[in-house]
Parts: sequence; structure tokens; C-alpha cells
Amino acid sequence: MTTGFFEGIAPLRYEGADSTSELCFRHYDPDAVVVGKRMEDHLRFAVAWWHSFAWEGGDPFGGQTFVRPWHPQDDMGRAKMKADVAFEMFELLNVPFYCWHDADLRPEQGDYAKNLSTMDEITDYIGEKQAASKTGLLWGTANMFSDRRWMGGASTNPDPDVFAYAAATVKGCMDATHKLGGQNYVLWGGREGYETLLNTDLNQELDHMGRFLSMVVDYKHKIGFEGAILVEPKPQEPSKHQYDFDVATCIGFLRKYGLESEVKLNIEQGHAILAGHSFEHELALAAAEGMLGSIDMNRNDYQSGWDTDQFPNNVPEVALAYYHVLKGGGFTTGGTNFDAKLRRQSIDPVDLIAGHAGGMDVCARGLKAAAAMIEDGGLEQALDERYAGWQSEAAQAMLGSDLESIQKRVLDEGIEPQPRSGRQERLENYVNRFV
Amino acid sequence: MTTGFFEGIAPLRYEGADSTSELCFRHYDPDAVVVGKRMEDHLRFAVAWWHSFAWEGGDPFGGQTFVRPWHPQDDMGRAKMKADVAFEMFELLNVPFYCWHDADLRPEQGDYAKNLSTMDEITDYIGEKQAASKTGLLWGTANMFSDRRWMGGASTNPDPDVFAYAAATVKGCMDATHKLGGQNYVLWGGREGYETLLNTDLNQELDHMGRFLSMVVDYKHKIGFEGAILVEPKPQEPSKHQYDFDVATCIGFLRKYGLESEVKLNIEQGHAILAGHSFEHELALAAAEGMLGSIDMNRNDYQSGWDTDQFPNNVPEVALAYYHVLKGGGFTTGGTNFDAKLRRQSIDPVDLIAGHAGGMDVCARGLKAAAAMIEDGGLEQALDERYAGWQSEAAQAMLGSDLESIQKRVLDEGIEPQPRSGRQERLENYVNRFV
Amino acid sequence: MTTGFFEGIAPLRYEGADSTSELCFRHYDPDAVVVGKRMEDHLRFAVAWWHSFAWEGGDPFGGQTFVRPWHPQDDMGRAKMKADVAFEMFELLNVPFYCWHDADLRPEQGDYAKNLSTMDEITDYIGEKQAASKTGLLWGTANMFSDRRWMGGASTNPDPDVFAYAAATVKGCMDATHKLGGQNYVLWGGREGYETLLNTDLNQELDHMGRFLSMVVDYKHKIGFEGAILVEPKPQEPSKHQYDFDVATCIGFLRKYGLESEVKLNIEQGHAILAGHSFEHELALAAAEGMLGSIDMNRNDYQSGWDTDQFPNNVPEVALAYYHVLKGGGFTTGGTNFDAKLRRQSIDPVDLIAGHAGGMDVCARGLKAAAAMIEDGGLEQALDERYAGWQSEAAQAMLGSDLESIQKRVLDEGIEPQPRSGRQERLENYVNRFV
Amino acid sequence: MTTGFFEGIAPLRYEGADSTSELCFRHYDPDAVVVGKRMEDHLRFAVAWWHSFAWEGGDPFGGQTFVRPWHPQDDMGRAKMKADVAFEMFELLNVPFYCWHDADLRPEQGDYAKNLSTMDEITDYIGEKQAASKTGLLWGTANMFSDRRWMGGASTNPDPDVFAYAAATVKGCMDATHKLGGQNYVLWGGREGYETLLNTDLNQELDHMGRFLSMVVDYKHKIGFEGAILVEPKPQEPSKHQYDFDVATCIGFLRKYGLESEVKLNIEQGHAILAGHSFEHELALAAAEGMLGSIDMNRNDYQSGWDTDQFPNNVPEVALAYYHVLKGGGFTTGGTNFDAKLRRQSIDPVDLIAGHAGGMDVCARGLKAAAAMIEDGGLEQALDERYAGWQSEAAQAMLGSDLESIQKRVLDEGIEPQPRSGRQERLENYVNRFV
Repeated sequence: MTTGFFEGIAPLRYEGADSTSELCFRHYDPDAVVVGKRMEDHLRFAVAWWHSFAWEGGDPFGGQTFVRPWHPQDDMGRAKMKADVAFEMFELLNVPFYCWHDADLRPEQGDYAKNLSTMDEITDYIGEKQAASKTGLLWGTANMFSDRRWMGGASTNPDPDVFAYAAATVKGCMDATHKLGGQNYVLWGGREGYETLLNTDLNQELDHMGRFLSMVVDYKHKIGFEGAILVEPKPQEPSKHQYDFDVATCIGFLRKYGLESEVKLNIEQGHAILAGHSFEHELALAAAEGMLGSIDMNRNDYQSGWDTDQFPNNVPEVALAYYHVLKGGGFTTGGTNFDAKLRRQSIDPVDLIAGHAGGMDVCARGLKAAAAMIEDGGLEQALDERYAGWQSEAAQAMLGSDLESIQKRVLDEGIEPQPRSGRQERLENYVNRFV
Repeated sequence: MTTGFFEGIAPLRYEGADSTSELCFRHYDPDAVVVGKRMEDHLRFAVAWWHSFAWEGGDPFGGQTFVRPWHPQDDMGRAKMKADVAFEMFELLNVPFYCWHDADLRPEQGDYAKNLSTMDEITDYIGEKQAASKTGLLWGTANMFSDRRWMGGASTNPDPDVFAYAAATVKGCMDATHKLGGQNYVLWGGREGYETLLNTDLNQELDHMGRFLSMVVDYKHKIGFEGAILVEPKPQEPSKHQYDFDVATCIGFLRKYGLESEVKLNIEQGHAILAGHSFEHELALAAAEGMLGSIDMNRNDYQSGWDTDQFPNNVPEVALAYYHVLKGGGFTTGGTNFDAKLRRQSIDPVDLIAGHAGGMDVCARGLKAAAAMIEDGGLEQALDERYAGWQSEAAQAMLGSDLESIQKRVLDEGIEPQPRSGRQERLENYVNRFV
Repeated sequence: MTTGFFEGIAPLRYEGADSTSELCFRHYDPDAVVVGKRMEDHLRFAVAWWHSFAWEGGDPFGGQTFVRPWHPQDDMGRAKMKADVAFEMFELLNVPFYCWHDADLRPEQGDYAKNLSTMDEITDYIGEKQAASKTGLLWGTANMFSDRRWMGGASTNPDPDVFAYAAATVKGCMDATHKLGGQNYVLWGGREGYETLLNTDLNQELDHMGRFLSMVVDYKHKIGFEGAILVEPKPQEPSKHQYDFDVATCIGFLRKYGLESEVKLNIEQGHAILAGHSFEHELALAAAEGMLGSIDMNRNDYQSGWDTDQFPNNVPEVALAYYHVLKGGGFTTGGTNFDAKLRRQSIDPVDLIAGHAGGMDVCARGLKAAAAMIEDGGLEQALDERYAGWQSEAAQAMLGSDLESIQKRVLDEGIEPQPRSGRQERLENYVNRFV
Repeated sequence: MTTGFFEGIAPLRYEGADSTSELCFRHYDPDAVVVGKRMEDHLRFAVAWWHSFAWEGGDPFGGQTFVRPWHPQDDMGRAKMKADVAFEMFELLNVPFYCWHDADLRPEQGDYAKNLSTMDEITDYIGEKQAASKTGLLWGTANMFSDRRWMGGASTNPDPDVFAYAAATVKGCMDATHKLGGQNYVLWGGREGYETLLNTDLNQELDHMGRFLSMVVDYKHKIGFEGAILVEPKPQEPSKHQYDFDVATCIGFLRKYGLESEVKLNIEQGHAILAGHSFEHELALAAAEGMLGSIDMNRNDYQSGWDTDQFPNNVPEVALAYYHVLKGGGFTTGGTNFDAKLRRQSIDPVDLIAGHAGGMDVCARGLKAAAAMIEDGGLEQALDERYAGWQSEAAQAMLGSDLESIQKRVLDEGIEPQPRSGRQERLENYVNRFV
């Protein structure tokens, strides 16, 4: 028996690029093999509980636009109905994973102990649904930004009681993630930052955040959680400045607190854009440091200065993202989580299905293009040629020497470097053969 | 005998806030003492050779607008005349310091050996001028971005010959800085970055840049240079992405390559803005890590997306900058370098004097306001009150504990944190009492 | 009898720049005369009902942080208590004006007729309060963006029923504004724009918006409302693109629909910034076209890409804003409305008072500096000198001639223009003498 | 006999999507017919003389990187060689058009009369080359921004001599355009704006610009030039603020000066981005007003805040641009001018060919996708359904009525609008079926 929420919508099937059905996959064929793996195993799609089921359509200038049978969300019975609908959607979309914050799943009780027990109750219920489904948990996380108790930060709060509450909350969410077989645990510090430096002790807050993360890592080992711990860069919003600004800042932070081999990154397109980077920059940098854990797939509007969390729809951009994922070895515990929400005017149930299906197809096209470039090898070959000079013994010896001996060589040999074309347009044309 | 370039302009004097003279100081009084030091010793003003004497007024859509007697700049005789004018300006402004790139001082010869010997000749000449002047060298640096040989980067170039050329160039500039008694040596990597990831090996380039910087540090020790080595964050321009993106990225980079105790930062307002930060954020973060070396004072237009390098003119902003400088202990080897250029329509010699004098007065007002806030102590007191909870033994014990014991305490004690006002507007009002 | 909400806070008095009281005016002295008018009559301060009394502290990532005795706002009794508190605040601050949207004042009833009658009831109540107070209505406006019925626009909605509802709503709000003696009526089209061009008929929507505004103007005349009709530019947020993008766009729109002599502009600092302009640009342009009606005073964070609506705190910027207001002749029906909200962590009643008092002082300093520049005349004189060439008969004749005769003259007279300095830094220094 | 500059490069041919040749067209097939016209006649490609032949590779931090046989560009003989190379490139690319500024073609002589006669000489030479070629002139324009005489503006300069010089210059360029059979004449006001409002009389400058444009229109009619007069929006760069900010601003300006039926717009992707708009927004708005004249095709880097003028490479974006061009009726006198330059590291002749070929293919793919959407009609149909309510007689009657009668109807009929889905994701998915 179903909730009937998606009445009239049949499970989506792969129908090929020429299909004119609205609700189908034109490119995402889970079992098709690209560069040695099934597409489903490459992409590891996940649906985000918060955008799809908890968000009600509000924005800074307006309230709820969605009218759902599980509203208002202050009741355990309706929380379970919401879970029912969620698993119906997972099945329609045939996605292998989903993700949550605690506050997405259970009603807020305004009391730690009650929140913990309702969380236990709802995750028991979801565990049963998982058992009857192909869909599992990619990651769980704690919402430590919505309730007013977090308004001044969680682990970086000036009030030690909030630090304590945060520690207790994360422990509860890690337990729940572990119970549900989650493959990662994520921390996003939307309020770990500041509104004004005038009231902020940067040093102390960073140290507390470092200590907090160490406790998380310790607890992971203690309970035998084998998934990855991930932090998620974002430069701002809700805070004016967030400590996990971007990939480089996070990596520097992890290194400072000795956590660089214990924690990886969950990287989002929209957050990259807000930080002044391209998505592929953030992915490539994390991969270069061996810290690319998972991705939050979406898109930001390039003309808006806030986090729009739209479904991805630009294949050439998505192809470059997956190119860096594949170059970095592909996902292990990570995956492609749609941290994407409908526009608030898209109020019909079919919009929810269409948004995800479109995003999945865009990712599938991107993955196939990326795979084709990997297999063709053109970009790698161009890199090899461009850096070939460094293969020489003299070049390597120079790296081991010092300024004086290099100067002597420049003078002795009369070295005058000759510029060579960077070939950017030719490489861009190359990419356009595949996307 | 003077060059006559500034004919009719007398040395500027401190005349007090009510003076109606155009060319005077209304706020900068070098000998006035604020928080225990003379203003001159706090601010340590420097003039930038490049903007004031080498730049000819071009922009991306137009060429030279300035017509100067030392143009064209391809001749050693005119390079010396340029130095004469520079020292005349230093005297009119009574600045204690100046800064240079090698290419600002000497004509480009297109040949390493010749560049080295003309650099030697011009720095001998400048050394003599220094000896007869109160003005010394704050820092020197190598221009490794203007000539086409650097178009693909210096230490991060795919061509090892360019790395070699860069190493030889920096050695020469360090020698020249040392010879002139420079108090710091700066590296800014305008081309250390990329135009497109498609042709870039991030890993290799970062490793080369780290190795290069280590050589610089080694050479500093070898020659007994006692000044600081400084790197200068900038996110982009000229490159699409520069590796020294911002303060956090630079600190992470230094830590990765084990250079965090050897290298400090030279921080610029305009670069902070381009990276999506406030100037005071960058200063506060560097100070928090003990890596605040020196500042490039200017302002960026908030509506332009490129590096406008204007003279500072907003006292409230500058006051917050110096507040963080003072909180961080003030300058040791560093100072306030005006990395600021005239607008290209400001073609008269008097504009050059007025631009600097106005900037110096803005900084002086900022410093005095910052000093008054430090002495009043209101911001520090507000911080102490806000974080007071962390002084308790229980709070400190919690930092040394773990998630489980904290959760137990939250449950046992029924901890429910109570939000307290962040008081931002009240603190902003407080600051406005001083600026 | 008071509500007690501001218990312990006495009415703020002017105490002079050196006062160390927290709650006072250091610069705003209502009766002090500058350039021929009392400060109160120049500045015409207004408090915004929405930010101060209706907004509950939510942001895109979190809910209510303020806990007020008039919450929840779904009840007429509490709406009246809110009005009581509002007028208590107006008295503490001694402000001459306030502003509202209908939805700020009355509970939403989800039904047009009921909304109209509750609006009638609450404005009767407020009318009585006004009668006992010095504080009057600067302007009223209709909230046609918060309720889900407006999600696709008001006058530009694809559904004619929404256009009808909007017309009826605006009529009701104009009636209420007229009843309360409001001095202006404002329209801000937060949803008059689009989320995606894919579903938008630009032409039709613009025509409907033009027609709607014409109806508003007609109705104003019909009821004998003598205040100004103002539209308020904003480029985006909540919509991706709003039709009233900026001052230039609004003026072009008004001219297209023949409304340029009937409608003026209400200009906001934060909206200017979002549109890529300085506040003074927008003011100067509106003044140049004779369409500067009123201002929404606040500030946007320069590093955030959304509308932060903070209290103004930068005197040099505010001074330039008032310089253009004064140059444009000063306010007639318009004024300085604080479209500014507390940071959501500023949860205490005193924060509300302090935020406004600080903003009022910043404006007062700005006004005094602007007045001093007007009286000194230095900027006007510089303009006169710069454009003096156009005073010649030949120059004026040229404007009346044609390309051929001008070319002939250039050839005959061998005209080769000689650049003159734009003197920007000198003018900036001049301004800094006054701020 | 050729110059040999492109030695080894054969004319590019259409080889189909699967070709692995580097230098060919995979999608641009000039004779293939889409929506009723040959692709060549739809796209009307033009090469920009400035980027391809005059620009030497400089940027704000570096000088020339390109080494070309026609350098230095101060000699008429080499100007002719440059023209030879240009026409060789037009032939290799098989483009029907090119565009120029006067200063691209002839050496700057620093004297109006000499510039006029060298312009005459070089356009005679080019006229002969045109006669032997398929390639004609899409548009000419005057460079009134590079020489220092224009530093304070052309028609908006405070010096009437500059206005005169500008008028004479434009007359000369219009004559040259007419002589060469140009199909449009373009004005871009890179210096028509301001660096600071402090020295600017907005009103006077706008009036002068309006008067200047009227003279241009008059002269066009006088000489019987049948092409279109186009202005080109750009918000800033080189100026801080340019008067032709964006499409809406230009349209408002034209309407103010009564030129809306005489002048159309030349719209550039990069300029749209700088102004905070999407390219399709600017195109759709101009088309809605019947003022879409021509396009400057390129792309701006979304993470850079300046005008990067890269070759287009994102097919989905380009498809939406051409969708609006086609919806607006397609080009008449206008076309697709590549206002795009190589990256400065792309120093080889082959890069120049590859950059254009890649751009042409991207445009061809975009055009084909746009044409397919036009033919399928899905977007139009969705629009029709969304706005269907306005077809009713009652809705149309309402537009002709007034606020009071509408309010009465809302009350009488109890109108409560019911939101309907905006279907954005479904429409985005639809588009992705075609791109």
C-alpha cells in the first residue's frame, strides 16, 4: 500500500536519448558499464531528505508554498508518513542512497533527551523501510544551525553549554548513522563562523572546532564506524564568514589540528561558486591532496549571490566535475548527493520526480563524457607533453639544489626560456568533442 | 639641485585637522605618540616604486596617459632620473620607507646577465641616495609576471628553464634587498596559478612552489638576511586562479611545506576584497596565527571586480585594520606600503603628492582611532564577557574529554543552552565613537 | 501605562559627541539647524514596522530567534500590543515617522475580505495612537510577496486572478495610507520578475506592470491623495531577476509607460549594492532626472551577495548619500526610512533601541558633513572649472550643429585635445576634510 | 601568394560530429538548412580585427606575449601585411564577415588629419581585398577609448574639443564603413561614464551623449547609409560606471532622447555577465522591445570580475542565446561577431584558427538546438498554457478598468487565487533534450 502521494507516476526506466517521455531516463542506465564499473556504482546517487521532504518552500521574503500531507512537521505520525513518501520516491527513481540531518527526520522537541528518543524511534522505523528497499544511507549529519540555540555557533559557540549540546547531538547522530549502516558521517558548520569580528575570538573558536573534530574522529574509532568523516566547505551563508571557507581552508585547518589523514571533504558546486571557485577547482584540489570524499551535486545561479541549490542542468560543467572525480580514483564511500531543491513555485509532486530525474540524466551524461575523455587520454597526454621537461635528470637535480647553484647555471648556460603555447582553446575544443 | 619635477611643492608639514591647505598633513604627525610609540614608528609608511614611478597610466582598454621626463623607461640614465624624482618625493612626504620590484628600477634587457648587472648599477645608485636620505628600503621583490617569459608561471612553470630563471632572479633580488638594508623580502605569485585546469598539474606545481620557497628561506639564512620573508595572498588577476588565494590558503600551504615558522604574510586590502573577505578578516586571521608581517595599504572599489589599487580613503575601515595590527602587537619589520596608484586621469605631479598625503592622513586617523579603542578596552572587555563561560573548570575539562562523557553530562544535567545577544549593533556603535 | 517591553530605557537625548552614555544621541540634535533647516526636518527619520516588529529573526538556514510578547503574530490582540510597543519605541527614539506593509500590521487571514476588515481595525487603532503621538506615517505599502498566492508575481502574475487580488490589495493599502495621513505610497515588486525566462513572457508581464501602475496613479488622483507614488528599485532577491532592477531601469520603465511625471523612486543602499552600483550613484541619477523621492537607509555587507539590511554605520558613505540628497533639493514628502534589521543574534529589546540610535547618529554625522560641503562649495566649484569649456558660445553652437561641420572645424583648426587631470584623489581628500 | 603566417593549415571543412581532425568543423555546415535558412545566413559569423590582429597579448600585469610579423603596429606597410593575414584567416575559416575599429586597421598618427588619410589608405586596400573575397564588413566602429585624448570620455568629455574630435572621428569611421559596404555601424562607450561622481556632471554628460547620438543618426540618413546604428551595453571596465550599463539602461536612454526607433543594440555575453544578467536575459529584453540588432559572442569567466572575452564553449548557454535570437526573428543586418580573444599564452597561429573554429562549432550546435526547440514548440506551448487565463474577456476587461471596480469584483466573487506550479525543472529538462 502506498501513500498515494505520487499517484499516477510509474517507476522511471532508462529509455534512451531519443525518448520523448517526460518521466524516464534518457542517459542514466544503472547497469551500463563505463570505465570498468556500472553507472550506478560510479555515481552512487543519493536524495537529500531536507530539500525534498523537510523544506516547505520558504525564502527570505516568503513562507511555505508546498502543501504536503505530512505538514505540519511537528508530529511523529506525520514524520513516519514523510518517510513512507521518501522511500516511495527512492523506488520511483531507483536511487541507491539517501542522506539526512536529524532535524529532517524527527520533530524538534526543544529538549535533548526527547530529541534523542524521537530520533531513535524514527530511525528504527526507517531501518525497517531500508530493509525492504534497495536504498541505503549515504550519510547522516546533525542540523546544528536551524534551532535558535545554535544562533551563535555549535562547537565554536562562546557558551560552553552549546559546545556540550553539540557534542551530545553529534554523538547521537553518529550512533544513528552507524545503526542505519551509513557510509559516511558529514559535518557542515553553517554557524561555525561569525557575523562580526567585533564580538569574535578567532583563535579560541578555531581551537574549539579543531578539538571538537578530534573528538568526532575518536568516537568513530571507538564505535567501529568504518565510514569516512567528511567536512563540507562553504564560505558564508548563513554566517557572514564560515571557518570551513573552501577546500584549501579546510585542508589547512585539518593539517593544523593533525586530522588530515582522518577527515575528507564533501564538496558542493554551489559552495564552490560562493567561494569564488569553479566546482572542478575544488574537486581537483581535494583530489590532489587525497581528500576528495563525496560530492553535493547541485548548481548555483551565476547571477545570484546566495546559495540557490538548484538541480544541475549544465552537462559540460558536470562532465568536468566527474572528470576530476574519475581522475581522483572515483568514489569509495562517497557518492553524488543531490543537495538540490525545487524552485519554490514547483509545487507539484511530479516536479520532485522530474527535478531528480533531470539531474540524474545530466550527471549520467557528464559521467559518460568524462569516462570517454579518460579513455581517450587526450588531456593526460597534453599534460605529459607540457610538463615533459621535468622528466630530465637535470631538472630533478635542480629541485634538490639551491638558489646559488641555479643562478650559476643560468649564467653559465645563458638560459633564456622560450614561451610555449598553453593551448587552452585547443584543449577546450577537445573537451567539446566529448560533452 | 632637484629634477624640478615637483616644482612649486614644498615639503608637507603637519598642520592639524582644521588646516585648509591642500598639501599638508591634518592628522599624520610623525612624532606624536600613540599607545607608546611615535606615529611614524607605528605606521612605517612606504611608497611603492611601481605605481608611482614605473606605471604609465595604461589599463586594459587604453595606453599611457602619464607623460614623465623619465619616459620611455628603457634607458639607464632615465632610470636614474626616476630614482632622483622618487627620493625627492620621499622627502616631500617625509616617508621612512619605499619598496620595489627589480623591473621597476632598471630597464628590461631581455637577458639574465644584463638584467643582473643593470640591477647592480641602479641599486648602487639608489644606495647612495639612501645614504643621503632618511628613507630606507622596506622590502624588495622580483617582478616575475610582466615579461612574456613568465606567462605560464615562475616557480610553477611547466618549463624547468623558467624555474631556473626564477630562482636566479629571486637570488639577485634578495642580494639587492640585502645590499640596500631592506627589512623584508616579499614574494607575490601573480602568475603562480593557472588559466585553465585543463593544462595544469596542480600537485606538481604546488610542490615546486613549496620547494622554491624553501630555497628562498635557505638562502636568507645563508646570507644572514635578518628581515622577514613574506608571501602575499591574492586570489586571481592576472591569473584566473592563484595558488596564494588568501590568508587561510597561504597558511595551509606554509604548514604543508613546513615553512610556517619561517614565512609571514604581506596582506593587501584589495586582494582581501577580491577573495571575498574583509581586510580586517585577513589581518585578524594572520594575527591569530602569528603570521601578520606587513600590509599593502590601498582600497578596492566595491563595485569593480578587478584590482583597482586606489588610495585608501575610508577612515572607519582603515581604523579596524589598524585595530587588528595593534592587537597583533604592531609591526616589527613590516610597515604600511601604499600599493596604490593614481587614477589614470590624475596626470599632474601634484596628484602624486596629494594621493599619498591623503592616504597617509587616512591611515593616521585610523591608527589614532584604533589606539583609542585599544586604550579604552571596550572591545576586549566585551569579548571577555562573551567567552567568560570558558574560564570555568568544567568547561576546560570538557575540552579534554570525549563525546560520550559530554552526552552523559547533557542528559544528567538536562543542559538546554540559553541564547544571549551577540550585541553586534552596540559594538558597532561603540566603534563609531572612536572613528 | 506602557507594555514594559523597553523597561529601564529612558527616552534618548542629544548629549554631544563626547558623551559616554550608551543610549543617547551624540550627533543627532533634532532642533539643530543645518543649511537652513532643523535636522529633524532634513532627515525625516522613519522606523520600519516589518524589521523591527514583524520579523522574527529567521534566515534561510534557521528559524525564529526573537522571543517577543506579541508572538505568535496571528491574533488581533497581539497585533495591537505590537502597535503599543512600536509607539513606545517611536517615543524613546523621538522619530517623526514610521512605515508599514499591510501584512506587518494585521494577522494574515487567508481571505481578502477578512484581511481588509482586520486592516481597517488595526489602522483605526494605530490612528488613535498617532493622534496621541508626534509620530506620523511616512508611507504605507502592500506586502505582495510573502503569502504563497504571490509566488509567481502580483501584477505580473500569469494568473489574472492574482492581478485582481493585487489590485484590490493595493487599493486597500492606499486607502489605509490615506486614512493615516501617509505622505507617500510605495510599491516594491519583490516577485515582479522571474525565476526562469523559460516560463516567462517578458513583454506581457511588463505591459501588465505598466498598466497596474497607471491604475495606481489614477486612483491616487481620484481619492485626492497628495503624497507621492514611489517605486523601489531592486535587482533580485527574492526573484532571480526583478523588473525594477535599478534606478535607470525604473526610469526607463516609467518613461515607456508615460508615468515619469507621476512616479518617483524610493532608493535603498542595499539594493544599489546588489545591482552593482554605489548608493550615491543611484541617488545622483534619480536626482538628475528629478525622480528622487525617498530613501531606505541601511547598509549591505560588501562580502555577502544577498540583502543584509544592516543599520548604516559608515559615515563617509552616508555623507556622500546625503550630499546628493541635498544637491537634489532635499526631501519633500520623502524621508530616511531605516529599512534595517537587527542581526538575528541581537535578541534583546535594548538592541532594537541601540541599532536605531546608532543609525540615526551616523545619518546625522553624514548630513552635517554633507551640509558643510554644500556650504563650502568646493565640489561645485571643481565641477564648474572642469566643465567651463562648455560655457563658450562655440561649444554651445557645436551642440546644435552636425558631424560634417564639426569635422570641418577639427580639420580647419587642427584641434588636438589636451588631457587635463581629473583630480580624483584631490577631491577625495577634500571630502575627507568634512567627514 | 600568401603571407605564410598560417603555413600548413588548410581551409577548414565540415567533417561531421565524429571527425577526429583537430582543425575542421564538426557542427558548422554553412549550407545546411535549419528553420528555413542556411546556417551561414543564420549565424552570420564575423571575426573581430582587434582581438585577432591588433591585440598583442598584454594584460594589467604583463606586456606583449604574441610575436607577429606585423609588429610593431606603427607602420602602414605592416598594417597591410596584417590585412593580408586577416583575409587569409577569413578564407581558412570561411567566415562571411569581419568587424573593426579604426585604430585596429591603421597606425595611430597622433593627428586627426593624418589618421583620416591613413584610414582612407588602409580601407582602400581592404576594399580591394574584400572584392576578391567572400568576406564583407559586418560593422565598423571608432576606437574612442585607447588614446590618452579619450581618457575622460569622448562625447561626454568635460572638454568640448574632445567632443569635437569624437564627432569628427565617428564621421570618418561612418564614411569608411559606408565605403566598405558595412551592414551596421556600432558605438561602444568604454569611456562614456565616470571614474568618480565627485568630478562628474551626470546630467550634462548624458545630454551630450544623447545629442551626439542624434547627430550620428542624422548623418546616417544624410549619406544614405542603410545599415543599422547600434549601441553596445557594458556596465563598467574601463570606466567605473558606464552610461550604457545594460540593455534596460540603453533602452531607457534611447527613449529619453527620442532615438528608440533609430538605434538598436549590439549585445555581448561578457558585458551581460558583468552587469549581473544572463546573456539570454539581455537578448530577450532587447527582442521584447524590438531592439535586438547584433551580438558580440564570447564568454566571460564566471569567477573573474573583469571582461575576459573568451571564446564561447558552453553549448547549453549558447543554445538559449540563439533561441532568443530566433524567437526575435533572427538577424537582419546583424550577426555573430566573435568579440573573443585567445588566452595570452596561446601564442601559436594555429591557436587563432582553433579558437575560432571551436567557437563556430559551439554556435552551430547552439543554433541547431535552438532551431529544434523552435520547431518542436514545447516552450511556446508551455508559455501559452501558463498565460492562458489572460485570453479571457474578463481578464482583458480588467486591464482596461480601475482599482475600485477590481476590488469590488474580488469582494463580490470572493476571488482567492490558487497557485500553480511554475514547472521550472520540467522546462529545464525539456531544454536538455535538445542541447
